[in-house]
Amino acid sequence: MTTSQVLPAVLDRIDRDLDASLERLFALLRIPSISTDPAFAPQCRAAAGSVAADLRGLGFETTVRPTQGHPVVIGKSANGAADGQGGAHPPRVLFYGHYDVQPVDPLDQWQTPPFEPRIETLDDGRKIIVARGACDDKGQAMTFIEACRAFKAVTGKLPLDITMMIEGEEECGSKSLFGFVRDNAGELRRDLALVCDTGMWNAETPSITTSLRGLVYEEVRLTCADRDLHSGLFGGAARNPIHVLADVLSALHKPDGSVAIPGFYDGVPELPPDIKADLAGLNLTPEKFLGQVGLKIPAGEKGRMVIEQIATRPTAEVNGIIGGYTGEGAKTVIPGKVMAKVSFRLVGTQDPEKIRAAFRDFVRARLPADCTAEFGNFTGAPAFQVAFDNPALVKARAALSDEWGKKAVTVGAGGSIPIVGDFKTVLGMDTLMVGFALDDDRVHSPNEKYDLKCFHKGIRSWARILAALAE
Amino acid sequence: MTTSQVLPAVLDRIDRDLDASLERLFALLRIPSISTDPAFAPQCRAAAGSVAADLRGLGFETTVRPTQGHPVVIGKSANGAADGQGGAHPPRVLFYGHYDVQPVDPLDQWQTPPFEPRIETLDDGRKIIVARGACDDKGQAMTFIEACRAFKAVTGKLPLDITMMIEGEEECGSKSLFGFVRDNAGELRRDLALVCDTGMWNAETPSITTSLRGLVYEEVRLTCADRDLHSGLFGGAARNPIHVLADVLSALHKPDGSVAIPGFYDGVPELPPDIKADLAGLNLTPEKFLGQVGLKIPAGEKGRMVIEQIATRPTAEVNGIIGGYTGEGAKTVIPGKVMAKVSFRLVGTQDPEKIRAAFRDFVRARLPADCTAEFGNFTGAPAFQVAFDNPALVKARAALSDEWGKKAVTVGAGGSIPIVGDFKTVLGMDTLMVGFALDDDRVHSPNEKYDLKCFHKGIRSWARILAALAE
Repeated sequence: MTTSQVLPAVLDRIDRDLDASLERLFALLRIPSISTDPAFAPQCRAAAGSVAADLRGLGFETTVRPTQGHPVVIGKSANGAADGQGGAHPPRVLFYGHYDVQPVDPLDQWQTPPFEPRIETLDDGRKIIVARGACDDKGQAMTFIEACRAFKAVTGKLPLDITMMIEGEEECGSKSLFGFVRDNAGELRRDLALVCDTGMWNAETPSITTSLRGLVYEEVRLTCADRDLHSGLFGGAARNPIHVLADVLSALHKPDGSVAIPGFYDGVPELPPDIKADLAGLNLTPEKFLGQVGLKIPAGEKGRMVIEQIATRPTAEVNGIIGGYTGEGAKTVIPGKVMAKVSFRLVGTQDPEKIRAAFRDFVRARLPADCTAEFGNFTGAPAFQVAFDNPALVKARAALSDEWGKKAVTVGAGGSIPIVGDFKTVLGMDTLMVGFALDDDRVHSPNEKYDLKCFHKGIRSWARILAALAE
Repeated sequence: MTTSQVLPAVLDRIDRDLDASLERLFALLRIPSISTDPAFAPQCRAAAGSVAADLRGLGFETTVRPTQGHPVVIGKSANGAADGQGGAHPPRVLFYGHYDVQPVDPLDQWQTPPFEPRIETLDDGRKIIVARGACDDKGQAMTFIEACRAFKAVTGKLPLDITMMIEGEEECGSKSLFGFVRDNAGELRRDLALVCDTGMWNAETPSITTSLRGLVYEEVRLTCADRDLHSGLFGGAARNPIHVLADVLSALHKPDGSVAIPGFYDGVPELPPDIKADLAGLNLTPEKFLGQVGLKIPAGEKGRMVIEQIATRPTAEVNGIIGGYTGEGAKTVIPGKVMAKVSFRLVGTQDPEKIRAAFRDFVRARLPADCTAEFGNFTGAPAFQVAFDNPALVKARAALSDEWGKKAVTVGAGGSIPIVGDFKTVLGMDTLMVGFALDDDRVHSPNEKYDLKCFHKGIRSWARILAALAE
């Protein structure tokens, strides 16, 4: 039988096993694996051990690998299942998730203790799993593991060559993981990475995150006079660096909202028409997206949809500025210095170092002779993008659409998930980010929840995706 | 004999009495009347008492008037000397000075103790008086008192109706003086005020400060989103208030350096050609004025001399700005708020409240719909200017030119001396600011000094001015 032929039985098994799946999730949720607090290091080790034991039971060759911080659980499917299926060469996959959770403060805002998971039925009939980590990322990671379990139960083996990497420091910056991936690139380099740590477009619409914007982060410090000056004595003659910086920052954007730095848009792709149509169909209005933070009018490039602006277009933002007197009351100073932090979100093949150099040239070209600039470099990471015609992406979209009865959308995330960038740059593989979180999951906040439907259909979704990839 | 006829004898007396004048100044300099430090309140009272005793000896009806802070010494020349001179109606004058001094920190940088005055001979032969207050303002105030003393010694009386007001809080903001002037307006309202607390153009060129720029000081706070946003999630769509503020501040000045606020130049006079020629003759080069603070190119209105820019033209300066993340490293925030402090130096008859309103309109006109502005008002003071044809000014210029053998210049001070504004607005009188400080006097710094020549010729200068005014 092909993997697709066994899929109905696997899905049936998932439905029948849901209570047991939940009980396994609850067991993991009961471990307070708060990674950022050293006091919870034993609990982090316990969570790693629990995950490792579970993976071993599914036939993964599993090790708990020490790091400078919390350990990484690595599991390898001993039987490269796909190898036995003939000449199909399905992709070998690396699944990434994390067993650590956020702190629980403020504890008094939890309706029930954060590590005593429970099912609650909301007024609208939705059932939700409430606990710290219910969604991020224990619940999400378990959707994949439970899908593997169902295949194992029905077919006796896993449908693909799968390597599991479940880390314990995602909530405190994945400090150990970057080196771990570099040091173990040989065993972690597969054909495709899968991540379950993102959200759905909405409760009915599945989505795959196929791009992450890159980031260049600069600090610029301007100096004019060699000291602060009295504006009564020097005002009118002395160069004011705040004025110079205002001129520079004001010039960063054109009236149409685009970025004015020469060459900035080199390597910025236009969306394929069908993808653009998909995004338009989501009908994310400015009112809906910006209304949640008290705004209503998109500030970015004119003629672009909000969802394009936030996910598929590059940006320039001033993240901070300080200079002169900023205390209470009045001080008539002309400062000698001023500083701003300026960052750029990148897409496509924009080159971080070219953007950085172009920005510095842009600033220097606007300095009067009496003003000097120094720069600080904090980050330079290129954008990450899965090609829209990537065969795995096409299969995963179809699988998700089958499960949810609604076309799965591909979205770009505005922010960066650095380890996904490393999967590309260090391991040379693309990542499909498929997740089932909803906007109201209160991730990182009290009373974190995960919809039971998301958990259940999440498992089924992964079963379908694995079956599709195995074809 | 007319006052002018006795002037040679008065000047001769000044020359012969110089050692005694110095000893009187030294006695005052030995009192550490540091007004800002409450621990020195007794010493401030002692200095007031010393000044009062001296004035009584010169025939002034003198009182030491308590305030919420340190006392004000008021002395009135009992014999309105001018009244007995026939129908000439010379002006009744109010002389203002202060007996308090700045703190002495850092004490270890003083070559000798700050309250042990001494005469030092410099390598170039100049003799200087070294002590805290040697110049500011004990030395300067004593030039006037010693001139009065010489008239008294030679003629038995003062040459004019003189009211003395010597306060003790100038170095800590003259907090009590504003109310004192209002409360005692009847006795303080004379025809003209004289102040000896300013400087010479240079060591050879006497000057009269005839204008002070006014000041409007505003704080502007812009708000866009109702919270700080993550630039990865919202960047490209959310309005960034730093961008809005940069646009506003960049628009404040035109490319020619002038201020772009509509109506800003209403009431700004052009200098009379002869005054402008005098200023040009001073040859204050950008290199000389700006070089001392590490600059070389005037940043203000194009086509104006530096001395015009700093003294006779209005300005707009951003004195401070803060918003977003300003700590170490990188934070990808789009802030909800940003704040700037913006001030305007005013000249001529510019109306502070019209300027304030015009600035606020200027800001509001540049706000996108999603951005709101709040304003804070710290100061609004009009400029002060003595008419160039004021008869007392004409006489004083001639008197100074006679003493120094070089044409006295009239200059505008870039900053504000608020009490001089009150003399105009509350008491209705102009002020002539005549002083003999030099740029290298280290006022407010360790090793403060006053050139012996400035002290000596300062006394002679006042004698000539008093004689001229008495004509």
